[in-house]
Amino acid sequence: MGRFSVTYWLGAADEPEARTRALDIALEQTVEIPRDTVPAGYVEDEILGRLEKIEPAGTERGGFLAEISYSDDDMGGDFLQLLNIVFGNSSIKANIRVEDIRLSEGILSLCAGPRFGLPGLRERTGVDNGPILMSAIKPVGLSASELGRLAHDFALGGMDLVKDDHGLVDQRTAPFSDRLKACVDGVNEANARTGGRAAYVPNITGPAMQIFDRAWMAKEQGAGGVMVAPALAGYDVTRALAADPEFGLPIVSHPTFSGANMITPTTGFSHRFYFGLLQRLMGVDAVVYPNFGGRFGFTLKECQSIVEGCQMEFGGYKPIVPAPGGGMTFERVPEMRAAYGDRVMYLVGGALIREKANLVEASKRLVAAVRGDA
Amino acid sequence: MGRFSVTYWLGAADEPEARTRALDIALEQTVEIPRDTVPAGYVEDEILGRLEKIEPAGTERGGFLAEISYSDDDMGGDFLQLLNIVFGNSSIKANIRVEDIRLSEGILSLCAGPRFGLPGLRERTGVDNGPILMSAIKPVGLSASELGRLAHDFALGGMDLVKDDHGLVDQRTAPFSDRLKACVDGVNEANARTGGRAAYVPNITGPAMQIFDRAWMAKEQGAGGVMVAPALAGYDVTRALAADPEFGLPIVSHPTFSGANMITPTTGFSHRFYFGLLQRLMGVDAVVYPNFGGRFGFTLKECQSIVEGCQMEFGGYKPIVPAPGGGMTFERVPEMRAAYGDRVMYLVGGALIREKANLVEASKRLVAAVRGDA
Repeated sequence: MGRFSVTYWLGAADEPEARTRALDIALEQTVEIPRDTVPAGYVEDEILGRLEKIEPAGTERGGFLAEISYSDDDMGGDFLQLLNIVFGNSSIKANIRVEDIRLSEGILSLCAGPRFGLPGLRERTGVDNGPILMSAIKPVGLSASELGRLAHDFALGGMDLVKDDHGLVDQRTAPFSDRLKACVDGVNEANARTGGRAAYVPNITGPAMQIFDRAWMAKEQGAGGVMVAPALAGYDVTRALAADPEFGLPIVSHPTFSGANMITPTTGFSHRFYFGLLQRLMGVDAVVYPNFGGRFGFTLKECQSIVEGCQMEFGGYKPIVPAPGGGMTFERVPEMRAAYGDRVMYLVGGALIREKANLVEASKRLVAAVRGDA
Repeated sequence: MGRFSVTYWLGAADEPEARTRALDIALEQTVEIPRDTVPAGYVEDEILGRLEKIEPAGTERGGFLAEISYSDDDMGGDFLQLLNIVFGNSSIKANIRVEDIRLSEGILSLCAGPRFGLPGLRERTGVDNGPILMSAIKPVGLSASELGRLAHDFALGGMDLVKDDHGLVDQRTAPFSDRLKACVDGVNEANARTGGRAAYVPNITGPAMQIFDRAWMAKEQGAGGVMVAPALAGYDVTRALAADPEFGLPIVSHPTFSGANMITPTTGFSHRFYFGLLQRLMGVDAVVYPNFGGRFGFTLKECQSIVEGCQMEFGGYKPIVPAPGGGMTFERVPEMRAAYGDRVMYLVGGALIREKANLVEASKRLVAAVRGDA
């Protein structure tokens, strides 16, 4: 059977210590029994993790990079088990971080990958060049018709995607089905006037037994995509939706509740892995993440590594669209253009809501500023 | 409507800075728009988070404790939205940690809580006094009949619960349905000989669209509980299962992939909150966590805070069973008895697998050592 491999950064004083830690990980992530009790034959030869390579991580960061290979057999065609092998129990240890993954036939066959990605979203939105734009309707507490009006105005102003705030679920002020109808209608009405192709993207994160129902409801009612928060809803939801040709809607991933996964430099995942490679394996088409210089602490370099993870060659999977958000304002457009160029989707929420009285005009100004034809 | 509140630890140089941060959180976790754009009336009065209290956290740890209240309306009867409000986007910030929650009518009505907890598990296992014991069948790569034999021997040796290793899913070496049958049969056969009530607890973490099917399959085939890894499968799965009276099996929660949620003292959740209070809201009956002094870095004090979170008075929810695991050995029994007394479930995996040739005898010795009647 095939094997995939994961590269971990390990904090360790010297190579013998790093090697010992790496061999511990190879055990922990697979058989989880003491080394001398691993059954000879198939379990030892195939299932047990195998340390393939270990080397210093370089002078700047210190520590070591260890590449450990795992069996497709162990993964057993199960995406959560893949994640369990990649970083299950070892996630609870410090001084270990997931940096990279080398794919296998088993992963390529399990993970269909993004159905649309950047090329598919360009085709659907008609934005052949330049950045795509996405706004968010909010806050929670508005009625379905008020939210539908916001969606209409954003679409009329030229936004390509209009997504729910991630806090919109099924509150009594704007129940999911009412909001879905109001926003789809609002966006369609705007499209009829502009001749555009704006799309509404409802948040389907919700009760475990209703997530797929909401996804299909969105599809049937004419939404142009769905948004899921994998750290809350579970990491297999997007993969299952992306793999279903009958479903066939773009998927936006939201980072809420995922923070601790990448917030310190010596635990969790690298930004590039978590917001890039992992999202592509999950079949996500566009990934929301906190922009540098906003309300969150990500650096420019970390954000650029996310773009790399989203768009570098990776098992033939389509490149996907990084969507930096969180405190974007009009003033920051030039800086973001310089940092990201055309490769990202601009997510603008609060800064537009501020212009509520003139939302259509404000959206138009932003679109013009971002596309550089202002 | 009712309001619940969350207490956050905030790293801040002085009270004005802490207050500013707390007010930012109140915005971020609810309306997520600039303060001066929050609509007056219902949104501002009800939905917007409200800073109720702020005070120094005490000299030892520094920083501040801020209590922020939120509306049941915002939660909208959705558990993932509750978690989203508690720590959604703010999870991506450093120097903020979730410490405590004050319940509301809305939460009490949404979260049925643990169906069994410690009293229910005592009744089902017949262990009226002293610690309950749980072992794990492993490693991945053994056949269903080999795993069934391990389950049989553990049960014959007096273990109360026999759970799957969390890496066992639906691998071809031991497909879920084959393993379920072999292990239920093995445990039943042992019970017939001992007159005991040992129970098999399969891992139902798996593809998003199959998790509930596997739970029901486990129920129908005679399993005595199910195990779920919420950080992989999603945080609403256990709540949904616990709330269903037709299901009615105990639920064991596994910490795999959750590590980053509590691994640093200034991000994520306190151990007490994550492994205690949150699990009870999720309807979990027993929670596996890494024991102090084993392969993971949790301290004795952190582990004792987990026991507190599992068993303190909390909204009338049943106390649940903390199950420390990860490197437990025979030698550590006295130390663990001293630290935990009778209030926990001992999870012993690898140390027993080592005694595979005499698993029944080894299990008996361990049971005797733990129960103090050796």
